[in-house]
Amino acid sequence: MTVPVQLLDRIRAAVDPAGWIGPGPDMAPYVAEERSLWQSASPLVVRPKSTEEVAAVVRLCADAGVAIVPQGGNTGLVGGAVARDEIVLSLGRMNRIRAIDPANHTLTAEAGCVLASVQKAADEQDCLFPLSLGAEGTCQIGGNLSTNAGGVQVLRYGNARDLTLGLEVVLADGRIWDGLRGLRKDNTGYDLKQVFIGAEGTLGIITAAVLKLFPKPRDRATAMAGVGSLTAALDLFQRVRGRAGDSLTACELLDRRSVDFVLRHIPGTKSPCRQRHAFYVLIELTNASVDGGLTSVAEEVLAKAIEDGLVEDAVIAASAQQARDLWRLRETIPEAQKHEGGSVKHDIAVPISRVADYIDAATAAVEKLIPGIRPVAFGHLGDGNIHFNISQPAGMAAADFLARRHDINRIVHDLAIEANGSFSAEHGVGLLKKEELERYKGGIETDLMRILKRALDPTNIMNPGKVV
Amino acid sequence: MTVPVQLLDRIRAAVDPAGWIGPGPDMAPYVAEERSLWQSASPLVVRPKSTEEVAAVVRLCADAGVAIVPQGGNTGLVGGAVARDEIVLSLGRMNRIRAIDPANHTLTAEAGCVLASVQKAADEQDCLFPLSLGAEGTCQIGGNLSTNAGGVQVLRYGNARDLTLGLEVVLADGRIWDGLRGLRKDNTGYDLKQVFIGAEGTLGIITAAVLKLFPKPRDRATAMAGVGSLTAALDLFQRVRGRAGDSLTACELLDRRSVDFVLRHIPGTKSPCRQRHAFYVLIELTNASVDGGLTSVAEEVLAKAIEDGLVEDAVIAASAQQARDLWRLRETIPEAQKHEGGSVKHDIAVPISRVADYIDAATAAVEKLIPGIRPVAFGHLGDGNIHFNISQPAGMAAADFLARRHDINRIVHDLAIEANGSFSAEHGVGLLKKEELERYKGGIETDLMRILKRALDPTNIMNPGKVV
Repeated sequence: MTVPVQLLDRIRAAVDPAGWIGPGPDMAPYVAEERSLWQSASPLVVRPKSTEEVAAVVRLCADAGVAIVPQGGNTGLVGGAVARDEIVLSLGRMNRIRAIDPANHTLTAEAGCVLASVQKAADEQDCLFPLSLGAEGTCQIGGNLSTNAGGVQVLRYGNARDLTLGLEVVLADGRIWDGLRGLRKDNTGYDLKQVFIGAEGTLGIITAAVLKLFPKPRDRATAMAGVGSLTAALDLFQRVRGRAGDSLTACELLDRRSVDFVLRHIPGTKSPCRQRHAFYVLIELTNASVDGGLTSVAEEVLAKAIEDGLVEDAVIAASAQQARDLWRLRETIPEAQKHEGGSVKHDIAVPISRVADYIDAATAAVEKLIPGIRPVAFGHLGDGNIHFNISQPAGMAAADFLARRHDINRIVHDLAIEANGSFSAEHGVGLLKKEELERYKGGIETDLMRILKRALDPTNIMNPGKVV
Repeated sequence: MTVPVQLLDRIRAAVDPAGWIGPGPDMAPYVAEERSLWQSASPLVVRPKSTEEVAAVVRLCADAGVAIVPQGGNTGLVGGAVARDEIVLSLGRMNRIRAIDPANHTLTAEAGCVLASVQKAADEQDCLFPLSLGAEGTCQIGGNLSTNAGGVQVLRYGNARDLTLGLEVVLADGRIWDGLRGLRKDNTGYDLKQVFIGAEGTLGIITAAVLKLFPKPRDRATAMAGVGSLTAALDLFQRVRGRAGDSLTACELLDRRSVDFVLRHIPGTKSPCRQRHAFYVLIELTNASVDGGLTSVAEEVLAKAIEDGLVEDAVIAASAQQARDLWRLRETIPEAQKHEGGSVKHDIAVPISRVADYIDAATAAVEKLIPGIRPVAFGHLGDGNIHFNISQPAGMAAADFLARRHDINRIVHDLAIEANGSFSAEHGVGLLKKEELERYKGGIETDLMRILKRALDPTNIMNPGKVV
């Protein structure tokens, strides 16, 4: 679709001189794409600095029937922010923390605030904003909400959706909905914010949000346990949850291969245990009380688990540095895996009770498909969310391996759905998983999604072609 | 609207002989109304015992353009389940617990399960289903979800919405949407369940749900503190939250008048403290660990608060019976207030930081309107949700007082909205608060609600005239 020059002029006039970028080198960050799966292109990147400017731009586009791709930090992994000749509306200049109310445990942030800056603003008020994920230094809170971001503390605090009390949204017709309420309870009609959270910008543009804050943890215990099987890893999770309850903030799985890759490729890392184990479980307990005694809780659970033969070996971090070292093993897995050639990545979730069977079955099935294939299973064990990322056989040409991508996806996703699971736990649909959405949620579910899309964006100008 | 006799015949034929009730004494419980504010009447109460039967009935009604009022335990307080000649579709016979998966911490219940039976089923698996409210022995989980019920543990566990992972819904056209997934993370398109939760049956009929379970608390401390002001009550809340973090499960406010009413009218109750105080704060801490030391935490916080002059007196329950006695003071307030003549009830929420100013301002304003009026302020302090229920002046005729209902509502609700609050924190809209919805959310917000209603129930047969 070609955008009329006159409209481009009008849009530029609706924002200040720093508020737009035409085609050229400056546009590069806005049309870059993390996984190099798509070519992104746009006649104009517009960067409004207020909700009113966003609304003005949307009104102009709505009147002309011209489509918009809303964009946050452009760190998504499914092509949700890729422009295919649409106007890119980047929220990055709307980056004010509008208000903090520590007594109400809320913070009001504009969509363009970088996640780390929201965490920092909360921290300065002695509060915690618990959303935490790899891209937090670059991704923006508007994008986090539009994709219902997950991360490493979902087990305790929930997804981005669960951390949101109110929203401000520019609708597809350019009207502004002010739903910026900071209430724990508000049953006054349909909960409209839920419709826009996780909609990947296809129903409207989130311009600001009231977010939940929590008491800052004062006590913390971080531990790594080596276990001989997935069943043991899951049993350990249940034991720790039963003993530590809400203090269990994170419970992450690392398989042997993922740890091997990290030790091989990431400088300065070292094995957490004296011997190698089939699986490792990273556990973090946190607590609002200084004297929460969490280290004792971790010691007690792990000692008993070793005594019972459930855990083979375990280490509890004796310092903040040791805790960071344990986390580094988990966080550098994606980086380490890049050094092992081509890989096909997945972001599945299954009920926690089915994680072990799922990983066993998926591993066997892909090994049968391509002998020598090297699945790496790691992720958020406590949420049933596994990043089942599969490296090519050693020595195979990357292109040959990647050509089998669809066959691999089919196996991995079919098995997830058979286990009543999800083919996209936290990354969303975007462009990458539209086909999967049709395949696995065809019929009534996608029909309902289309009904909502048509109702809220009847002219299909909001991030068209994404999700549904 | 008159329902054609032929349609009634067809609906009766779609269910078994025990599956319907015609006009007469047996219909009474289904057309009764808690607050006696409306006359309810129906040509037929249909009680399907499966999702397929619900779907069959809805299809028949959809084809004929005849409206349905879905009904759970019929315990709502805003007239959401009142029939005005519509077919009543009661879910009460769909009362099976379909599955429990303790390892996944989930339970799948049909809509007609009584809340207490869901709690019990969880308990039998050594798990906690934390939704808890006054009507739990009668209300049904389908109604709880349709109204996004709150209750006394929202502070820690959230509202009904937050406790739901998956739904099964019969749509307005009679199709069945199976969204019964038990996943902590699932970003595969729009989160459709959010649209039906809290919609009060106006968009579809919830027939089953996958609910979240939690580790059962092993340690518990219950305490009551007497304070001299609302500011002190709020400061105490912040201190306890900062010290106990997630262990703080409930933080309830009782004003002096509410305690006076309870002591006067509820047999067997006694004053929690030696002297009377302006306000009382009921605190409950719970924890998954047997040796959580919660009593020590409560002692420590309260001792320091007394030393600092924040708390005037405090008692910590030394036994389960004493804890129940403290809770009884809170739970019998509505019953006690009935003995004091006519009352006008409210269910407002404001940001926690504004609770004190709100109650002060609302009290002054209603006292100015009707001298001698007796506001009772109690409720969920930790959620900013106050039941501001106002008793008539002693000696005034109840009818004269109730005639001023609208003037009182106006003051109480206007002030809540001025404080960026809600006129219905947990009870919903139904018929009772439709006028308020128009007044306070007119314009874009009700327009968006109407757009959703038209999209999902184009022929307006699902609980018509409720909410929007």
